[in-house]
Amino acid sequence: MPEIYETKECVTADNEKAAEETRKQLRDKKVFFVNLMASPGAGKTTLLKRTIEALKDTYRIGVMEADVDSMVDAAEIEKMGVRVIQLHSGGLCHMDADMTRRGLEKLQPDGLDLVFLENIGNLVCPAEFDVGAQMKVMILSVPEGHDKPLKYPLMFQVSDVVLVNKIDTLPVFDFDKEAFERNVRTRNEKAPIIYLSAGKGENITEWTSCLQEKIEQWRKNA
Amino acid sequence: MPEIYETKECVTADNEKAAEETRKQLRDKKVFFVNLMASPGAGKTTLLKRTIEALKDTYRIGVMEADVDSMVDAAEIEKMGVRVIQLHSGGLCHMDADMTRRGLEKLQPDGLDLVFLENIGNLVCPAEFDVGAQMKVMILSVPEGHDKPLKYPLMFQVSDVVLVNKIDTLPVFDFDKEAFERNVRTRNEKAPIIYLSAGKGENITEWTSCLQEKIEQWRKNA
Repeated sequence: MPEIYETKECVTADNEKAAEETRKQLRDKKVFFVNLMASPGAGKTTLLKRTIEALKDTYRIGVMEADVDSMVDAAEIEKMGVRVIQLHSGGLCHMDADMTRRGLEKLQPDGLDLVFLENIGNLVCPAEFDVGAQMKVMILSVPEGHDKPLKYPLMFQVSDVVLVNKIDTLPVFDFDKEAFERNVRTRNEKAPIIYLSAGKGENITEWTSCLQEKIEQWRKNA
Repeated sequence: MPEIYETKECVTADNEKAAEETRKQLRDKKVFFVNLMASPGAGKTTLLKRTIEALKDTYRIGVMEADVDSMVDAAEIEKMGVRVIQLHSGGLCHMDADMTRRGLEKLQPDGLDLVFLENIGNLVCPAEFDVGAQMKVMILSVPEGHDKPLKYPLMFQVSDVVLVNKIDTLPVFDFDKEAFERNVRTRNEKAPIIYLSAGKGENITEWTSCLQEKIEQWRKNA
């Protein structure tokens, strides 16, 4: 067996406190906040567009598009007629609670029911930083492979829902659903695993119903 | 147009000095060092295996597998009969020069001709951290999409070679090669762009010849 060396601990600082404050403020405003995380190209923006299509008559929706540098995604989302701002991380690989709080101040969530943060495309650091969301959603796309829960364990561990996107490409990739689910369950016993294709519009309702259920449940308890 | 807010600068510290020292030490030892970067699931390990297959009779090869937590990849590579160690970043999203230097001390590159670092799966932070390699190689896989140079500009800017992997899946994805090349060229005027499929073994020689040429050129100047 090859030897293993531990190199460094990631510093999350006192991010938790700021995240908890955001969560409380949004609870007072009755705004449900979703942190959407995935690798580059896993389909975050496309899924977001499908979700907005499905829910925009039910909820007033706002979106914060976090990106290292471009504003490709925000322009796409704006066409859907929802409130959207672009956040630039200036090279940083994730959004933290403080950056998110400042984004929310600009977005002005008052009067909204549902806010999405499309996080930076990255399966590592975003998992470590609570941004104050009520729900963490991750997307893994079929081409990335069923072994990813072993390699990016924290992301799978912290997510409340695991979406598997691009299922229309299952015939061309060696993606073992059973192995994937087994791998997820080593880290996360209860997150629903939902298979869909945002690009082709397949099985979107299973996801939006799950989201809607979470929102309504939270509203009852808020 | 949506509004844009700049949130934070990434801190690269004085990583450069440590990287330069590593580069010099490896030059003295005549070891060519390649930093291989890509998103999760883009095909780094599979490409590495193909590369080892093609070049192991020409060069004595060593591999450092950096991973957040698992050792799936190192075990795979070890089967190829090359010297390999696993580095764990302890949650960190990239390798920096200091972590790499410590990894090299464990690998003991003396007597090797060619060392690969398989960096953490991430298109953001690894681009910011020079680890002391002579050559930076990035892989983008077709399913990730042709817009990625706009969204992860630094990675495309710093890479000496851009590999486009999984070309066997071009028929099922909306990947526009011309748009991709145009997007790359806005950030990087000269890096060769090589299309291949590591999984299917397509066009591997174009890449390994390019690598071999770089190594021989470097040896002449070293």
